Amino acid sequence: MNPDPARDHLDALRRVEVVLVETSHPGNLGGAARAMKVMGLERLTLVAPACAIDDTARARASGALDVLEAARVCATLDEALADTVLAAACTSRRRDLPHPAYTPRQAAPELLRHARVGAVALVFGSETYGLSNEHLMQCRWLLNIPANPAYASLNLAAAVQVLAYELRCAAADRVLDLPTFAPASHAAVEGLVADLEQTLIAIGFLDPVQPKRLMPRMRRFFAKAGLEDEEVAIWRGILNATRRPRRQN
Amino acid sequence: MNPDPARDHLDALRRVEVVLVETSHPGNLGGAARAMKVMGLERLTLVAPACAIDDTARARASGALDVLEAARVCATLDEALADTVLAAACTSRRRDLPHPAYTPRQAAPELLRHARVGAVALVFGSETYGLSNEHLMQCRWLLNIPANPAYASLNLAAAVQVLAYELRCAAADRVLDLPTFAPASHAAVEGLVADLEQTLIAIGFLDPVQPKRLMPRMRRFFAKAGLEDEEVAIWRGILNATRRPRRQN
Repeated sequence: MNPDPARDHLDALRRVEVVLVETSHPGNLGGAARAMKVMGLERLTLVAPACAIDDTARARASGALDVLEAARVCATLDEALADTVLAAACTSRRRDLPHPAYTPRQAAPELLRHARVGAVALVFGSETYGLSNEHLMQCRWLLNIPANPAYASLNLAAAVQVLAYELRCAAADRVLDLPTFAPASHAAVEGLVADLEQTLIAIGFLDPVQPKRLMPRMRRFFAKAGLEDEEVAIWRGILNATRRPRRQN
Repeated sequence: MNPDPARDHLDALRRVEVVLVETSHPGNLGGAARAMKVMGLERLTLVAPACAIDDTARARASGALDVLEAARVCATLDEALADTVLAAACTSRRRDLPHPAYTPRQAAPELLRHARVGAVALVFGSETYGLSNEHLMQCRWLLNIPANPAYASLNLAAAVQVLAYELRCAAADRVLDLPTFAPASHAAVEGLVADLEQTLIAIGFLDPVQPKRLMPRMRRFFAKAGLEDEEVAIWRGILNATRRPRRQN
């Protein structure tokens, strides 16, 4: 264990991934890479990018060319998030989704705490459409950057800058506690949610033809709880026991 | 005097000027305008600009074209600052200057307080050279954005974004009202836990003779989630459906 807590926190910054979904302007790829590196973030992931890393992107990256060129490319958000322990979606719109929503300042200490034990993802949508509800559903938290209600549309790289800046400020605060739990991975949570859905159908509680808002509610509930590895195992066991044929009583 | 302090602070934001000295990239003019407007700032001043407001600048300004096109142009920094009550220079370099130096977060409340009584200027240098010592001498404060010592060079518009964001956070800690839900009562949670325990026994997952640590774990899980009334109702429904005798499959 590193004996210097400040060092640990800066190491944690390097485990925060910025995930850009369907970005369409190359300049924003470069701008995001630069915004990350100036705050000590290194991992960039592009999900189904709608543009290439071209000269415009490289020019905007400036001294962060290394971050830009090391970017991982994934076909789907699900693939990008598979190994993360916490994914937070940055969105400016008010949503019907009942996910926990935080400001970057509120969320930063907790994001860092998770980054000390695993990969944390900050997810940003495309310049034109933002993130779809389907994408948002795969993230545990929503992040809302405080903004002018009359014009709240931050440039994509500027939004990355604000988030990365808040994380660096939180890292410099040096008042973070060690995590005392093993957070479940994205893939483990998705597996549990799928298992729960099948079980609710099997016991006749969920009508697949008229699902209404039940599964989004259940996702929100698990998101609030912050599932741990052991808890996923317990729930999977309960669901398994629930589906098992048993004697009538 | 406006009786609503939040209103006053948002008004104060509009009296904060962003002063860009010898900017050379049109994209940064537009990017800065957008960074300002999304946070509620409106006044942009260009000192001896080394580029024109062109199509690139307008494209990057996006919905902040009004801020960009209303920009005031001055020949010297002295002229730009003439009517201000406080000027703060944004710089990433450590200087020999004896000026008071603050982080944006430290400075923001005081900048806003000044903006309630007069014009406040945030001064940014050129992309290549930053601000000269002569320029810095004309400002009362230095502002240092916390950054990665290995690469501390924020893009100009990104630096404007961080400053404008800090001012908005200081102006309105009430900007974001989190949705409020109806938390479940103690009795409702206890009822749910008892119901869960009986159900787990009924489906053979919990052995009442050797319960181990299962129920304490489940209690902790529900505590983390912060149960709401509606969630208790959903879980009770699920447990009820789980216990209901059903056809073997």
